[in-house]
Amino acid sequence: MKKLINKPEDVVKEELEGIAKAHPDIVKVFFNPNYIVRADAPVQGKVGIVSGGGSGHEPMHGGFVGMGMLDAACPGEVFTSPTPDQMLEATKAVNGGAGVLHIVKNYTGDIMNFEMAAEMAQAEGIEVESVVIDDDVAVQDSLYTAGRRGVGTTVLAEKICGAAAEKGYDLKKVADLCRRVNANGRSMGMALTSCTVPMKGEPTFELAEDEMEIGIGIHGEPGRERMKIKPASEVVKLLAEPVIEDLPFKAGDEVLAFVNSMGGTPLIELYIVYNELAKICEARGLKIVRNLIGPYITSLEMAGVSITLLKMDDEMKELWDAPVKTPGLRWGV
Amino acid sequence: MKKLINKPEDVVKEELEGIAKAHPDIVKVFFNPNYIVRADAPVQGKVGIVSGGGSGHEPMHGGFVGMGMLDAACPGEVFTSPTPDQMLEATKAVNGGAGVLHIVKNYTGDIMNFEMAAEMAQAEGIEVESVVIDDDVAVQDSLYTAGRRGVGTTVLAEKICGAAAEKGYDLKKVADLCRRVNANGRSMGMALTSCTVPMKGEPTFELAEDEMEIGIGIHGEPGRERMKIKPASEVVKLLAEPVIEDLPFKAGDEVLAFVNSMGGTPLIELYIVYNELAKICEARGLKIVRNLIGPYITSLEMAGVSITLLKMDDEMKELWDAPVKTPGLRWGV
Repeated sequence: MKKLINKPEDVVKEELEGIAKAHPDIVKVFFNPNYIVRADAPVQGKVGIVSGGGSGHEPMHGGFVGMGMLDAACPGEVFTSPTPDQMLEATKAVNGGAGVLHIVKNYTGDIMNFEMAAEMAQAEGIEVESVVIDDDVAVQDSLYTAGRRGVGTTVLAEKICGAAAEKGYDLKKVADLCRRVNANGRSMGMALTSCTVPMKGEPTFELAEDEMEIGIGIHGEPGRERMKIKPASEVVKLLAEPVIEDLPFKAGDEVLAFVNSMGGTPLIELYIVYNELAKICEARGLKIVRNLIGPYITSLEMAGVSITLLKMDDEMKELWDAPVKTPGLRWGV
Repeated sequence: MKKLINKPEDVVKEELEGIAKAHPDIVKVFFNPNYIVRADAPVQGKVGIVSGGGSGHEPMHGGFVGMGMLDAACPGEVFTSPTPDQMLEATKAVNGGAGVLHIVKNYTGDIMNFEMAAEMAQAEGIEVESVVIDDDVAVQDSLYTAGRRGVGTTVLAEKICGAAAEKGYDLKKVADLCRRVNANGRSMGMALTSCTVPMKGEPTFELAEDEMEIGIGIHGEPGRERMKIKPASEVVKLLAEPVIEDLPFKAGDEVLAFVNSMGGTPLIELYIVYNELAKICEARGLKIVRNLIGPYITSLEMAGVSITLLKMDDEMKELWDAPVKTPGLRWGV
């Protein structure tokens, strides 16, 4: 296993120590249970937004904590759901009296633990709403999921809802917006290589030197099809067409196009993928009005890419453009 | 070769097409010869800043074109110097009457071609200053270099000098500042894996499953030593100590700490590396006053990391914090 780590069991703890040292102006990090909150939490009168999930997807979610995005993130061990006590402590830490939204990716452990945490928080008098993200069109049900998996749209929902909360939207309005983002976002990913979970020490799956897997999950869950490697133009078609046809996105729609690295794929390839995606969108009459290109929801060092399209309305565009200051996404401030 | 590309010979062209489609609000891309200029170039009365080098190091340099950083970048083929005509056209395109600074990494081809371009531009009446970046402490002379290689400090020099030019510094003052940044910056990198140049189709070098190379160059040029993989704490010591001792950085110094992914190393590992670097700096009495963590000067999909320390003064800090709006680095706007 070739990784820049110390002991495999210390990976998450030491990563969090690094984040704490690097960004004290933006976040505070708590340990045992582990959670990250924005440095000025709780913000009085503002809806708090909490997300979380297994580690190994950085910058998601810890890198999205800060002004204009998340109030807190709960990192589990690598590819492992965080526990209800992490979520409860995070929820309490960001409760500014206007309630807390939990943004939950659709994985069984995450769903179960966030539900439990929401009940415990409510028992302590904190109003909690939960929205589940399930935007991955690759497969119905999966290794850790009933229904569709939650992937790239999560990043977009966190940005857009974070801006809405910052603007003073109430809890119901932020939650409704989050459901609307999820309803209008669709994703699909692929892998050229597996990743290796540090505690396991070996690749999660095997792919031959000339193979790729289409529809892969962010934990290496099986996708739709394993096949010989193809040129980028064909790979992007295999991802974008099911995404477009699922919503369906229609001629005239305004979209945000998000090209995401699974971790090991560098930017030079992401721009080639974006070039192909832009051609497909143009041919279909979709107008790309915003984009995001880079490693934002990763799967450790997996080589591969995912594509997310989000059908945008004017409100979403305005909230997307609003200032954000997090370790992983920043503009306007 | 597992890459998301079409034909190997089209990699740079299609990457540039992707950049052009993704960021028309920030940059304009020209083809044959290839160069990228900020969308509002030339900015009248402002010193223009041009850099360039082989492709494969994205986001450097094309991703650093925009307000507050570079006015233009000249991308060569992968790991191949750009040509003098690219540099000349870029220089002419960003000349706003206050002269143009060339920021050149110390590789023989880059040096030679930028010198030729500077002479041609001067013959056309454009004042040009050139500053060579040679911050890599790993080795003296190298595969493509006489003297030290230019690496991570380039990114910092481009940001700081870009802000200075934006503020109205004249050509001599921007060039002197760039020399000061280079004089105060030191770097060293390492690789866990090789990368594969698309036109070559095979790894640049071989590293066994349990080996790493300390002091690697950003094109896979040989480093100081090939050895068995070690824990992150020891790897970071092997990089940071030669960096610190070379300047030397001394107790009480204020530094910018830059932890860079070579392309295939994900953020979770970069924060573990940052955590170790912060410990070493603290033990030495160095005060980290700014940091940059992510993939900024890469070597295609190589797994590995480089560390750059820059001794900062108040002027550099202020210029570092100034607004920047490029595809690869953005804040304050």
